Amino acid sequence: MDRLAKIDAYWRAANYLSVGQIYLMDNPLLAEPLRAEHIKPRLLGHWGTTPGLNFCFAHLNRVIVERDQDMLYVVGPGHGGPAAVAHAWLEGTYSEIYPGVSQDAAGMRRLFHQFSFPGGIPSHVAPQVPGSIHEGGELGYALAHAYGAAFDNPGLVVACVIGDGEAETGPLAASWHSNKFLDPARDGVVLPILHLNGYKIANPTVLARIPEDELLKLMEGYGHRPHIVGPDHEEMASTLDIVFDEIADGGRPPMIILRTPKGWTGPREVDGLPVEGTWRSHQVPLTRVREDAGHLAMLEEWMRSYRPEELFDGDGRPVAEIRQTVPLGERRMSASPHANGGRLLRPLVLPDFRDYAVEVKSPATQSTEPTRALGALLRDVITANPNTFRLLGPDETASNRLQAVFEATDRTWNAQILATDEHLAPGGRVMEVLSEHLCQGWLEGYLLTGRHGLFNCYEAFIHIIDAMFNQHAKWLETSRRIPWRRPVASLNYLLSSHVWRQDNNGFSHQDPGFLDVVMNKKAEVVRVYLPPDANTLLSVADHCLRSRDYVNVIVAGKQPVLDLFTVNEAITHCTRGLGIVEWASNDTGTEPDVVLACAGDVPTLEVLAAASILRDHLPELKVRVVNVVDLMRLQPPSEHPHGMTDTAYDAIFTTDKPVIFNFHGYPSLIHRLTYRRHGHAHLHVRGYKEEGTTTTPFDMTMLNDIDRYHLVIDVIDRVPGLRVKQAQLRLRMDDARRRARAHTREHGEDTPEIRDWTWLH
Amino acid sequence: MDRLAKIDAYWRAANYLSVGQIYLMDNPLLAEPLRAEHIKPRLLGHWGTTPGLNFCFAHLNRVIVERDQDMLYVVGPGHGGPAAVAHAWLEGTYSEIYPGVSQDAAGMRRLFHQFSFPGGIPSHVAPQVPGSIHEGGELGYALAHAYGAAFDNPGLVVACVIGDGEAETGPLAASWHSNKFLDPARDGVVLPILHLNGYKIANPTVLARIPEDELLKLMEGYGHRPHIVGPDHEEMASTLDIVFDEIADGGRPPMIILRTPKGWTGPREVDGLPVEGTWRSHQVPLTRVREDAGHLAMLEEWMRSYRPEELFDGDGRPVAEIRQTVPLGERRMSASPHANGGRLLRPLVLPDFRDYAVEVKSPATQSTEPTRALGALLRDVITANPNTFRLLGPDETASNRLQAVFEATDRTWNAQILATDEHLAPGGRVMEVLSEHLCQGWLEGYLLTGRHGLFNCYEAFIHIIDAMFNQHAKWLETSRRIPWRRPVASLNYLLSSHVWRQDNNGFSHQDPGFLDVVMNKKAEVVRVYLPPDANTLLSVADHCLRSRDYVNVIVAGKQPVLDLFTVNEAITHCTRGLGIVEWASNDTGTEPDVVLACAGDVPTLEVLAAASILRDHLPELKVRVVNVVDLMRLQPPSEHPHGMTDTAYDAIFTTDKPVIFNFHGYPSLIHRLTYRRHGHAHLHVRGYKEEGTTTTPFDMTMLNDIDRYHLVIDVIDRVPGLRVKQAQLRLRMDDARRRARAHTREHGEDTPEIRDWTWLH
Repeated sequence: MDRLAKIDAYWRAANYLSVGQIYLMDNPLLAEPLRAEHIKPRLLGHWGTTPGLNFCFAHLNRVIVERDQDMLYVVGPGHGGPAAVAHAWLEGTYSEIYPGVSQDAAGMRRLFHQFSFPGGIPSHVAPQVPGSIHEGGELGYALAHAYGAAFDNPGLVVACVIGDGEAETGPLAASWHSNKFLDPARDGVVLPILHLNGYKIANPTVLARIPEDELLKLMEGYGHRPHIVGPDHEEMASTLDIVFDEIADGGRPPMIILRTPKGWTGPREVDGLPVEGTWRSHQVPLTRVREDAGHLAMLEEWMRSYRPEELFDGDGRPVAEIRQTVPLGERRMSASPHANGGRLLRPLVLPDFRDYAVEVKSPATQSTEPTRALGALLRDVITANPNTFRLLGPDETASNRLQAVFEATDRTWNAQILATDEHLAPGGRVMEVLSEHLCQGWLEGYLLTGRHGLFNCYEAFIHIIDAMFNQHAKWLETSRRIPWRRPVASLNYLLSSHVWRQDNNGFSHQDPGFLDVVMNKKAEVVRVYLPPDANTLLSVADHCLRSRDYVNVIVAGKQPVLDLFTVNEAITHCTRGLGIVEWASNDTGTEPDVVLACAGDVPTLEVLAAASILRDHLPELKVRVVNVVDLMRLQPPSEHPHGMTDTAYDAIFTTDKPVIFNFHGYPSLIHRLTYRRHGHAHLHVRGYKEEGTTTTPFDMTMLNDIDRYHLVIDVIDRVPGLRVKQAQLRLRMDDARRRARAHTREHGEDTPEIRDWTWLH
Repeated sequence: MDRLAKIDAYWRAANYLSVGQIYLMDNPLLAEPLRAEHIKPRLLGHWGTTPGLNFCFAHLNRVIVERDQDMLYVVGPGHGGPAAVAHAWLEGTYSEIYPGVSQDAAGMRRLFHQFSFPGGIPSHVAPQVPGSIHEGGELGYALAHAYGAAFDNPGLVVACVIGDGEAETGPLAASWHSNKFLDPARDGVVLPILHLNGYKIANPTVLARIPEDELLKLMEGYGHRPHIVGPDHEEMASTLDIVFDEIADGGRPPMIILRTPKGWTGPREVDGLPVEGTWRSHQVPLTRVREDAGHLAMLEEWMRSYRPEELFDGDGRPVAEIRQTVPLGERRMSASPHANGGRLLRPLVLPDFRDYAVEVKSPATQSTEPTRALGALLRDVITANPNTFRLLGPDETASNRLQAVFEATDRTWNAQILATDEHLAPGGRVMEVLSEHLCQGWLEGYLLTGRHGLFNCYEAFIHIIDAMFNQHAKWLETSRRIPWRRPVASLNYLLSSHVWRQDNNGFSHQDPGFLDVVMNKKAEVVRVYLPPDANTLLSVADHCLRSRDYVNVIVAGKQPVLDLFTVNEAITHCTRGLGIVEWASNDTGTEPDVVLACAGDVPTLEVLAAASILRDHLPELKVRVVNVVDLMRLQPPSEHPHGMTDTAYDAIFTTDKPVIFNFHGYPSLIHRLTYRRHGHAHLHVRGYKEEGTTTTPFDMTMLNDIDRYHLVIDVIDRVPGLRVKQAQLRLRMDDARRRARAHTREHGEDTPEIRDWTWLH
């Protein structure tokens, strides 16, 4: 066979296996005429995109073999699961990983039977499929994932098939400009293959229906050299030769526009309606195969059109000509170690975070910007791990006070650089683009191929990637249960410029609700930390950077806050996850009258201030101050591995004393975590209640009743007997609020006494 | 003055007013030398984008006057609040709306003082600013909002300034293709003005640093005729003349690329570092004006460079030449009725939804696809409101079974149409694009300009627009408190293809957590409905389509479910929001032994089946079945206007009997709503616990323990005394689960008895 005949044979085999997966539960080689009982009762799967994906697999394999090319394949139309599975089986990888699905007739029967079948495998390119870092359940992230995989992988080509449906999404549309963040010297290459099959579920696609000259200009506008290919082996092969020569030569990166019919090679017409080349082939082109003898006959004719007898021997094994087209070992895209990143993962070289600690001689006597301290640590993490760690964020690295990193590195930038620019370079390790989607997508691709990173973001706008977080968490939830998938580095978020310090940008920038989204995912993959000062932030960050297979969310402010813990105290406190702040409490050795709990830096400061006021005015009242760093500790151990036993919880929070909990986020989250606790009826939570505008920091706390004065009022209202006896103090607190507000409105800033914390001690 | 001199005077005035807002709290006209006490203590605001925004305002006003053009201005860089405020004040609108901020020196002083000042107005283009439908707090949605405003507004030009930072976001990148969904015959025109000032917060922008030929090709690739303009009045004016001629002529829509320095006309250099034309002018170019006499002098010099004495008379009123450049009445962009859509809003003409009801002779004896019934209603809503209602969704209208709408209309499509296409037309009322961002952004723009709509979406992927929902809800929360902002139509979501019926697409498509995001917003703007059958869906939809200023979330299935309520019963049930399903209960007139509560169609069916099993096997057990349609009813009235009193709640749920609540979403949401209720300790919630894959519908319920058998086990485990006495029944339920699972795994579908509901009665 000549090279195109071999490619065609591989393609036909992959198509045959794809159709078989969608339809058959028996008779895989069509050894006998197809009968209704060979057909699955429920037909689930997506045929439309599959032959195009198979076409690319077949042609790219030829390039890999001829050029000994290291290549990874990102399947944007990830619902084309049958293609990726067929490919892995043809390459032998599938049988190596799942020996029950052997490369023979019995294995082919299992391959078909298990697809979209209860107890089998999902219909999409899920984590169960070898060779994939990208499920594509939710569309839009293929190209960003591809770039994430290419960064710091010189020599690697990431072929990324982009469906023309997916191309309509925002994240994908933004991803084209990722090429301005790729360093030709240090990174691999991304080869986008825009697959125009013309239709989504029920509609034509935009890019398939604009004039071709507009489409070419669009791709040139994105900085690419576009090559148009039709549904033809010769065209695809010769174009790939040109494209890989262009890649080798450097310069403007090439991309391919592949036009094929949707559902190519499938039934042309069904029940009098055109199917191949229309949206009707999106899912299952023949739907009544079990019930309708005509459909059954069409299916058999369709499958036999691939001439399976030429493709598989009598035992169901791919014939030698096909097996010979397959690359060897790890060159097989289905066996790429990049697609099982845990295999390549090396622990970060981490400096001792204690070396970056703030010296704290006495708690609450000096202030530090926590993220600034973290910046110094990250600077040295970057230096120590020059090819395996990246810091990402939407243009907020300096705004979030992490700018020490620029002592060690630059911002990644592969476009024009002016003389007045600072810290821009193609090889920079800090990636800033005004797209949370790109930051998230790049980082996911980077992590899933075995590297490390941290995404810093304004807290409110991290909601932009809620859906991407969901998809990544689901990927982790699934991959943790797959033995051959090795653990990858955790996805670390640093949420700064948080709700309490967006007094400058106002209401639109105030939303601490990402934590609520995170908590919906399985406890085994999510962690939330709210370190109240610099040293606890360092301790938490060190822990997160060492962890695997989690999503870690750290909320920490960039504004100066009091240093509360020495570094050793911070380590103890963070290891426990929560604890009594002894110096701020006066209940030593006894049961307190009230517990003031807090999580988050600003709420903690207000609790400390409230405790101080109570010490001054009600010295006989026994107040216990509790700070929570690890939010998951509040849950029962049955709900989260970090959960505290009831006994431990009760020892800290009591079972019957009022607990005023001053929380960083929406109050309901604390209730959600603690409703099963004995003392829950006595728990009163303060937090963000969706009040805000452009104002002063302290006014923000007053607007939401988390301020020190209101906390004192809460104590008076809730500790039995105080309401009447301390009516005077209550009035004074009301008055203090009124005066603080009046001062703010007159002078435009908080009172000196509020800005200055020296009075606390 | 010639026309350019007048434009320049207007521009200088707007710039002067912008700087004044950022810096001054007194001495607005610089009647005396600037002193430290005239300066605000906290300098908040964004100067960088402001002069460019003012430049566009000035030039567009000239076009409006000369052509009597109806125009709306969407400020993409919405943090440039000073510009929009200055413009509204110069046009007189601001003083009309806020008489205290008069068009004189005293008013100017208040104008300056209030900006970013506690008790004053936010720093961004918030809802407080007349003429705006777009805050731009979170970037990315300007162009989608502009298109939403242009739809069904023939004659209107929506000028949309897009910052080059915003242009990096995914949603904005996708929005360029909106022109394929605009009907030249029935819609207005969007004029994108891409404002390249070169920098974001701390970085250059991508589009400012790619070669100009790439940029032009990109815009041509998007289907536009691009025009490049530099920082020059003559160029801008002559280009606008050309552009508006092109708009009048039709054809390829023009767009403008405006290149100006960032912080144009501001301080060129501060403390030895370049500021104008760099990222350093993003916010406040001079930061130590109060403390540093040099900075103070520079500020005064800067403000005087606009020659305020030529711009304002001795009373602080804009001079006649400036006032004469301003359009009249509603032609002023700051007074456009489109920007206060409630003024233009007309109630939908709604057919009687009872005419679309399913006839239900006996409950639970027949099945209907609820969304299919809704589709018929929507079809006639579209017919009755041909210019004021749109149905949007990411290519899922037919998939969600709303296809009856295509009997009345088509899909909006203004690109190539092939002979095989169906229901595509430029004037179609159904908008389908594979971008939830575009659907949401278009709809927001459409609603805020006084029209109506409904967004139908796969439930899991609505998380893609979590952040946009947050921003819109915040807009509503704020605008409801602004007397002159008139109520607009609610934003209605129909979430179908929900978590329990994504058995085909699998785990990545299963996420009911949008409800948790919604619940974080103020109770006054959010509503969540879970109608369990067709007639309740019709009743809920009718209610939502009539409502104002809310976000309504309706979760309803597209798969057949039992018809439970006659239309009159449905009306009663939905009006109450929840109620006892008498025919499924056997506790008539007495206190039940157990309450089986449910919300959502699939959980309701499983509860009905469980109740039936209990009736058969434990006829002496008094079971009460409660269905919840309006989730907000579960809260106390202090938390939500729909909230039930404790007395009413207790009458339904009891205070001490076990309540098994079978919920559509994540169980914690029910706890969050009910933790204050007397009976909460006895409440046990089942719901989605993040288990799923490609499998059968019933297997999905079993994976998450919301199935009928497990509910019976829950009852046995929780009703005192049953655990021992009914151990046999418990084992039978376990066995039923095992058998159902085994059948599914063997046959690939649920048992006939599970698929068939006739046994229920």
